[in-house]
Amino acid sequence: MSDSTTRLRMQVAYDGTDFAGWAQQRDQRTVQGELQRVLSHLAGEQIVLTCAGRTDAGVHARGQVVHLDVRTVGQLGVERINRALPGDIRVLEVDEVTGDFDARFSALWRRYSYTVSDDPRGPDPLRRRYVLDVGRELDIEAMNAAAAALVGEHDFTSYCKLKEHGTTIREILALEWERRIDELSGTATAVMHVTADAFCHSMVRSLAGALIPVGEHRKPVDFPRAALDMKSRAAGVPVMPAHPLVLEEVGYPPQGQWARRQQQTRTVRDLPPS
Amino acid sequence: MSDSTTRLRMQVAYDGTDFAGWAQQRDQRTVQGELQRVLSHLAGEQIVLTCAGRTDAGVHARGQVVHLDVRTVGQLGVERINRALPGDIRVLEVDEVTGDFDARFSALWRRYSYTVSDDPRGPDPLRRRYVLDVGRELDIEAMNAAAAALVGEHDFTSYCKLKEHGTTIREILALEWERRIDELSGTATAVMHVTADAFCHSMVRSLAGALIPVGEHRKPVDFPRAALDMKSRAAGVPVMPAHPLVLEEVGYPPQGQWARRQQQTRTVRDLPPS
Repeated sequence: MSDSTTRLRMQVAYDGTDFAGWAQQRDQRTVQGELQRVLSHLAGEQIVLTCAGRTDAGVHARGQVVHLDVRTVGQLGVERINRALPGDIRVLEVDEVTGDFDARFSALWRRYSYTVSDDPRGPDPLRRRYVLDVGRELDIEAMNAAAAALVGEHDFTSYCKLKEHGTTIREILALEWERRIDELSGTATAVMHVTADAFCHSMVRSLAGALIPVGEHRKPVDFPRAALDMKSRAAGVPVMPAHPLVLEEVGYPPQGQWARRQQQTRTVRDLPPS
Repeated sequence: MSDSTTRLRMQVAYDGTDFAGWAQQRDQRTVQGELQRVLSHLAGEQIVLTCAGRTDAGVHARGQVVHLDVRTVGQLGVERINRALPGDIRVLEVDEVTGDFDARFSALWRRYSYTVSDDPRGPDPLRRRYVLDVGRELDIEAMNAAAAALVGEHDFTSYCKLKEHGTTIREILALEWERRIDELSGTATAVMHVTADAFCHSMVRSLAGALIPVGEHRKPVDFPRAALDMKSRAAGVPVMPAHPLVLEEVGYPPQGQWARRQQQTRTVRDLPPS
């Protein structure tokens, strides 16, 4: 960031259904591509975005965080941006921040939700685009017992779809399933909430893939932990579909610690896989 | 209903987006058409449905109620029905009832919701299919003051899109706007809840059409009541879009009063327009 630019932090929500994921790709509609196109047009300069969580195709967000540097900050008001954006992306907040804020590297944690309809009647029609239909009641208690064994710092190779360049060690800070009965339709869902310092590729969908069979009593409660300990994709953890997954929130330290956190994260990510 | 058949009551939810409304039409995908096709196939006999509220194209339901008569009741279990239905229709409940229950004529009241995004940032992308975007904050207090003047029994000619065959007198039992802040995205919506003994065609969308301009301060608080008193379509009440409208619930008297309520309703509906 040069002296003549301002760093902005934005909170972004999107419906991932019609996007080929976050990351810009040639000839594909992506969230980054759409946002950069609109922001660059409004600002009259080329805008490049850095995000906290690079979501895959079909994954949604309510709390994605991005940063960008801009010379003419006055053109990027939240209402003006949203008038120019398509309906499946909204910028919920725009704040000026100091240059040591980095949406990706300053983040302390990311929180995702994964929603499953386990109602034998199937999902509420008005919610079905954002839930996985498993069609029979899940044993929440069994899933939570299995989930507890995954919390903490581990090598998540068994839960990473692609070979990571750096380490596959991640720390899960919280992992829990919640029973929800919709107050309007009366339909039941089970929602997985997971918070970690960071996630490797497809990790949340793999966590759901290990835990849902436990809730269906198709796998024993110790399967997810045993799979973790194998440290291998051969552990047989399925990757579940993308459409029930939402990036809910990203946590940052207070302003004075942004630079230090950045440095910490960059160092850890550069470690070779253990 | 003959002695050899059983009357069933069903609660039905649907996403109206891809339907040409409730009522069966040749060469159109309708909720009644889809439901009758699936139920007739499962029961092995021709099923005809009567519903509480004939929703228009694009209108949704969480609490639609239907009745039907069937000889072979054992084939119509709720899980079996839902496995055969497309994902945008769910049968939430199936109950055997006595032959004096009529989904349409035994009903005491219908309740609808109409959801408007008045957040200057626009609607939450994950909810946008079911909300109207007005883009600026609505004055809930002004809308509620205007709404209060419509509660009670009135001739709603000014709020009926088509000429009704019978009376246009309806009784609004409750009409209120509620401010909601989504706990996940933080986005604001205004939700209209309206309960009436029955509604004439496009009445809920006309009520929203009279009240939203009051919330925008484009019309005075007494406009909706003045329009009502004109008893004419020329009162200039706009009909708002269908996609934010949901049939939430239908109320019935206890079992012993189904027949009497039917008779009452049929008598009132046959009165000539006043």
